[in-house]
Amino acid sequence: MKSDLDLLMQEHNMDALLVVGPGQHNPAMVYLTGGAHLTSAFLIKKRGSPPVLFYNSMERDEAAKSGFRTINLDTYRLQKPPEKTDNDGLHLMVSRFQMMFKDAGLSSGRVAICGQSDAGMAFAVFSALQAASPDMTLVGEAGEALLLQAMATKDSVEVERIRRVGQTTVAVVGQVADFLTSHRVKDGILIKHDGSPLTIGEVKNQINLWLAERGAENAQGLIFSSEYDAAVPHSTGSSSNLLRLGKTIIFDIYPCELGGGYFYDLTRTWCLGYAPDGALALYEDVLDVYNQVTYTLKPGIPFRTYQELACEVFKARGHVTIQENPLTEEGYVHNLGHGVGLHVHEKPFSRHNSQAEELLEPGVVFTVEPGLYYPQRNLGVRLENTLWMRPNGQVEILAEYPLDLILPMK
Amino acid sequence: MKSDLDLLMQEHNMDALLVVGPGQHNPAMVYLTGGAHLTSAFLIKKRGSPPVLFYNSMERDEAAKSGFRTINLDTYRLQKPPEKTDNDGLHLMVSRFQMMFKDAGLSSGRVAICGQSDAGMAFAVFSALQAASPDMTLVGEAGEALLLQAMATKDSVEVERIRRVGQTTVAVVGQVADFLTSHRVKDGILIKHDGSPLTIGEVKNQINLWLAERGAENAQGLIFSSEYDAAVPHSTGSSSNLLRLGKTIIFDIYPCELGGGYFYDLTRTWCLGYAPDGALALYEDVLDVYNQVTYTLKPGIPFRTYQELACEVFKARGHVTIQENPLTEEGYVHNLGHGVGLHVHEKPFSRHNSQAEELLEPGVVFTVEPGLYYPQRNLGVRLENTLWMRPNGQVEILAEYPLDLILPMK
Repeated sequence: MKSDLDLLMQEHNMDALLVVGPGQHNPAMVYLTGGAHLTSAFLIKKRGSPPVLFYNSMERDEAAKSGFRTINLDTYRLQKPPEKTDNDGLHLMVSRFQMMFKDAGLSSGRVAICGQSDAGMAFAVFSALQAASPDMTLVGEAGEALLLQAMATKDSVEVERIRRVGQTTVAVVGQVADFLTSHRVKDGILIKHDGSPLTIGEVKNQINLWLAERGAENAQGLIFSSEYDAAVPHSTGSSSNLLRLGKTIIFDIYPCELGGGYFYDLTRTWCLGYAPDGALALYEDVLDVYNQVTYTLKPGIPFRTYQELACEVFKARGHVTIQENPLTEEGYVHNLGHGVGLHVHEKPFSRHNSQAEELLEPGVVFTVEPGLYYPQRNLGVRLENTLWMRPNGQVEILAEYPLDLILPMK
Repeated sequence: MKSDLDLLMQEHNMDALLVVGPGQHNPAMVYLTGGAHLTSAFLIKKRGSPPVLFYNSMERDEAAKSGFRTINLDTYRLQKPPEKTDNDGLHLMVSRFQMMFKDAGLSSGRVAICGQSDAGMAFAVFSALQAASPDMTLVGEAGEALLLQAMATKDSVEVERIRRVGQTTVAVVGQVADFLTSHRVKDGILIKHDGSPLTIGEVKNQINLWLAERGAENAQGLIFSSEYDAAVPHSTGSSSNLLRLGKTIIFDIYPCELGGGYFYDLTRTWCLGYAPDGALALYEDVLDVYNQVTYTLKPGIPFRTYQELACEVFKARGHVTIQENPLTEEGYVHNLGHGVGLHVHEKPFSRHNSQAEELLEPGVVFTVEPGLYYPQRNLGVRLENTLWMRPNGQVEILAEYPLDLILPMK
């Protein structure tokens, strides 16, 4: 939890965090600042002290909203090296970081680096900064790990923000269901007022519109896929595809707050009008796994225990799973779930982790999303909700929506 | 230009590019793949060869849309080191990169790294990969530089994509103008049908909605600021502020294609109903600089020459500029413009660059955006268009919209 940050820094033996990158769409920076509109900034948090935020002059008022001590980056009048070299730019960046460390009261120790940037520049700048700063140890792999560990459990403010995105999500899912079922049907295909067929591209535009109307953002895309596309878990759906009665549609929606804040994640599988036996049988197996898992969730259990449960139930019902065949493209081909927060996928994960058990502890917000996929039969079914494990260990769906397969046409 | 990539790799002495990160909202990856919906992928482009795209199994059909040779990352069955160490994760990532290099036919040479990732992980992984790969030289700072150099001039496909975003932008700007001017006014404040005042937050929601309706995305935010906020160039505007007749509004809108593609950038300054003399005087100075600059644009001239021209004209009219006082927060406090493409700000820049002259060459798409700011008088004015320098050296505004200051109320 965010309040554990100093403790986690101590456990990871870190004297400071250095966060780089924009103030939005950058989970580490959003986590620490709350999401200020900064195109590029730096934040240094010493263990036991509040952060210092370094901003560009034009964004001084946005930076000030953070409530932190702020320093104008433009006050660092950078001295070019006496001889012009190929690496002038690197040299200037290194000396600016050294001035920032000084102003943040950091003269030695272990500094964890995190935040989004160009991978190559990060490698170049921090390699050069490390070489120029013998009293500091720059640690690359621990910063994200430490923050992801803090982020894995949410405080009540975070849960309410996720819940609000969840309410938006289910409201839009309901609008989509109404929209689809109120269409006319001709030869088994949904038809618009003008007599032309409705396309998946049009449905997706409509979804983006309804999300924008409610102040949410579709930052990571959207899956609305049917027939063959639905049988490949992350295919997003072809824009020109039409909507046919009786075909499975996988609708996986994961919007976030405007500016790249907290996410919500939900999937429904729909058949318009009726469901053929094959789809219905898969749906019942997936629903059964969803129920068996969600009814048995308890605090303190590794998330992967439930992945194993899901594999066993699917296997008993005759499906291949990634437990027996990690490369299978048929049957149960993915993991059961993941944490949801400032990343649409974050800790805890239900996949096997060689480093550490990832537990379902009080405070986690996570998905349960079993699915079955048969590309050769053009069939895919997935059901997903986002759940919160309350401080008392009880589990709550943050935004309820019916799990029904069949959407009767109006 | 994109077609110069092999040539630029040769000039930069690079044998290959390694691009990391998601397929969307990641300019380097979008540039090379066109923008496939890949949550995380890798791309290796050897000089003189087409790219190889490494994808996660579930995204195989999205990866295939790139048309490149694709390799499923899940086929790399990673061997854990015999002894469990703290750095298992790093070790696995390093050995996977080594297998990817091998499969891409790369056994030695200089590899430029680019693409978005966590800065700390990039520093850690590429430091470890470099240590484990003595025959390779991983270069951090050149990859982005090389791509930014290629991106600085656009081919006709790119220009048409930017033009289309521009058309969307001016259509939405027109909707906003109509929306504002059709409100009732009471005591100088814009009032909604229900009698309550219109807020800037409501205007921004409406803008996001109209952008979504037209299939564009507001990926980097939006500036719609009035009074004091308008006098600080990058303040985005306070949601609760009301709209008053005669106050300057700075409306800076920079949407992109859905999924983080090409951007457009436009700013207008508006006074609703009437403009007070102070605002009008600033507007005339800004418009004069805008016109003097755009009428004299010629191919092959450094962009900063026009920044110098802007400073001279502003100075002659009695304004302080960053040329005399780089820290000024009053007067002309920023640069004249920047390139626009897969980044809202990219090469060429009009600011002084110690490394290389940035020229306005045929093919560049760039902004001209003079402005004046007086925070103590609650006044700010900026005008901005996005221009394309055609292959013949002529300059064209990619989407026209009137520069008028005053929006008469209907």
